[in-house]
Amino acid sequence: MEATIITVGDEILIGQVIDTNSAWMGQELNLRGIKVDEVFSISDTSEAIIGAIKNAFERTDLILMTGGLGPTKDDITKKAIADYYGVGMEFHEPTYERILGLFKKFKKDTTLAHKEQCYMPVNSTLLKNKMGTAPGMWFDEDGKVLISMPGVPYEMKSIMEDEVFPRLKERFPAKPIAHRTILTIGDGESRIAARIEDFETNLPENVKLAFLPNLGMVRLRLSATGDDESTIHQLLDEKVEELKLLIPHLIFGYEKDTIQNAVGRLLVENGKTIGIAESCTGGYIAHMITSVPGASAYFNGGVVTYSNKLKEKVLNVSPETIEKHGAVSEETVREMVKGALEITQADITVAVSGIAGPGGGSPEKPVGTIWLAIGDKNSTQTLKLQLWKDRIKNIEYTGVVSLNMIRKFLLAEA
Amino acid sequence: MEATIITVGDEILIGQVIDTNSAWMGQELNLRGIKVDEVFSISDTSEAIIGAIKNAFERTDLILMTGGLGPTKDDITKKAIADYYGVGMEFHEPTYERILGLFKKFKKDTTLAHKEQCYMPVNSTLLKNKMGTAPGMWFDEDGKVLISMPGVPYEMKSIMEDEVFPRLKERFPAKPIAHRTILTIGDGESRIAARIEDFETNLPENVKLAFLPNLGMVRLRLSATGDDESTIHQLLDEKVEELKLLIPHLIFGYEKDTIQNAVGRLLVENGKTIGIAESCTGGYIAHMITSVPGASAYFNGGVVTYSNKLKEKVLNVSPETIEKHGAVSEETVREMVKGALEITQADITVAVSGIAGPGGGSPEKPVGTIWLAIGDKNSTQTLKLQLWKDRIKNIEYTGVVSLNMIRKFLLAEA
Repeated sequence: MEATIITVGDEILIGQVIDTNSAWMGQELNLRGIKVDEVFSISDTSEAIIGAIKNAFERTDLILMTGGLGPTKDDITKKAIADYYGVGMEFHEPTYERILGLFKKFKKDTTLAHKEQCYMPVNSTLLKNKMGTAPGMWFDEDGKVLISMPGVPYEMKSIMEDEVFPRLKERFPAKPIAHRTILTIGDGESRIAARIEDFETNLPENVKLAFLPNLGMVRLRLSATGDDESTIHQLLDEKVEELKLLIPHLIFGYEKDTIQNAVGRLLVENGKTIGIAESCTGGYIAHMITSVPGASAYFNGGVVTYSNKLKEKVLNVSPETIEKHGAVSEETVREMVKGALEITQADITVAVSGIAGPGGGSPEKPVGTIWLAIGDKNSTQTLKLQLWKDRIKNIEYTGVVSLNMIRKFLLAEA
Repeated sequence: MEATIITVGDEILIGQVIDTNSAWMGQELNLRGIKVDEVFSISDTSEAIIGAIKNAFERTDLILMTGGLGPTKDDITKKAIADYYGVGMEFHEPTYERILGLFKKFKKDTTLAHKEQCYMPVNSTLLKNKMGTAPGMWFDEDGKVLISMPGVPYEMKSIMEDEVFPRLKERFPAKPIAHRTILTIGDGESRIAARIEDFETNLPENVKLAFLPNLGMVRLRLSATGDDESTIHQLLDEKVEELKLLIPHLIFGYEKDTIQNAVGRLLVENGKTIGIAESCTGGYIAHMITSVPGASAYFNGGVVTYSNKLKEKVLNVSPETIEKHGAVSEETVREMVKGALEITQADITVAVSGIAGPGGGSPEKPVGTIWLAIGDKNSTQTLKLQLWKDRIKNIEYTGVVSLNMIRKFLLAEA
């Protein structure tokens, strides 16, 4: 089963907006056994829309179209579609009443444009949009389906999940397909591949494994097809259990989890609090941890001791240590951990000091040299990274590594 | 002048990669008077590539194609293009020698794939790629130009800037067009429009003004066309000077500047250092400031006092203040500024305390209530924001506002 995505709107063609909708749709459709054959981004003119529909229906039986349904532009896509099918428009009373109700609730007045928004091609089936005023539309003629949705990402996603996926499943019954995503951290793609080589080789023919690496983490996606939905789910569950035995120390979560969330959960489970002492990462690790709702339950706080003076004053790092070994050294991060335990009163603290770049390197300590430490009142562990010349990449990668250090420290303790 | 962009690669269609190349190309081409008519994302098959070229050349005389030139897939795009033109391939010795040289430098061995990478369609003009091994290609037949480049964003951008833009200017001479981007912060789009209404109304017909808002900032882009390049540049310079007189307090920079950079420059110019005391922003403000290379010249450091206990212990906020007014209050952020001046030893400090959400709100202090303060040893100013329910948006917007507070504080002092 193949589909074409058409995104309508000059804002994409002039580069004012990056098209993230297509990537999301491509991913989600793929997971449901529908392959996206082409993506067209076109101008919001009737000619371009009709041309793209004709072109796409020559190759595929399914078109998903986004954009051109807003209150100012809404006539363009809808009228173009009506013209393509050679049908007229009719006023849709329930949509108008819903819009009136929404505006009454927010004590705002509707305009004539809102009333005009309620005229729909007569051959459309409306798709409920609980996140906005413009409904989606479903057309099914001559064995081919066209779906039109607003371009606002959260409106499109809501319509896809509530209305489109269930209808597609019924309209184009596909061989059942199911997926599991296993999230790993701490090893690269090729090392993981070596660890699970036998597992991969012995996978049944209807199960595929994909490696999806990203910034210190690798997602493993298992996809299975078969005749019976519950059988393939059971098969995937078994395969996940096998992976858990092979690489237990690398798995931090499943599906759409994040390392920040995983570390937060572990801290809550262990009843531990965390504190951070950052130099080169400049607050980024604290930011990652506090991007999780409810982080106040386990994050006491942190310090960003950018200057050496502050490392001494706030974290009690001895001037002799900095003098002798430098601010970027194992000795300094060890003392930073101790100072952070004292000042943040947290059970565990992480400290980072390094040269993020692009300046500040030396032959002994080139740009990308980063020292990390983690510890509690009993013990401290350290780690040295030798990263890249890119400041932002160094900061972000170090953030991920530091979260994995917290994870491993908690697992070793448990 | 119109162009079509074709991006080749399954990774875009399955949503593994978001296509940011097209947005960049669309923007840059637009600035040069070339309108992108359509963007096609297609599969890396010969059939799809040839089909897309034919389709695009029916409507436009210029195609920019990215992707499908990597060492593993490189034959696909090149051979498809050669087949489209009905020509053969020939070995390009200088490219091979360049690759051998690069690999020798990094002490790695080349493989057979690298040698195969050096076969090019006989009718191609090679475009130098200083960032990678695969050169770009330029085809000019029957009055129509096709450009093929690697999909790696920094390689594509480097080829576009060094090779493609100069050639396009010569090959498709357009009416001169020039642009100025003025970066503002502190007022919304409609308020800025009201402030510069007369300016906008009185703009000559060959000058257009666009408002490009984004998270507390608005970019104003002036574009002028005319017969003489130096005349339109002079005209734009005059218009920028007029804007400077109308909204001097809102302008923080020009073209690709950032508010982080602008604040950094102001701190250096004023010989001042900055320190940050964050609660709800959780380190994000410090992260913004330290994302600028060389921030250590003016950023002493910061504290993330997430718990009340830490606000008391580290920043010396009095328990009575927190008890009486709450952690999210004008009184608390005032005391945080004082405590931060003491602990970071900076000339100026900023403090933030708020409810980022989604939990933690109350009827008196709903989610999105944020208090900010800025001060030095002489004075302190405060600001209250009432933002949204979205945690990440609240954190990022507050970060931008706090940087603008630093900017305004320094400008008032100067």
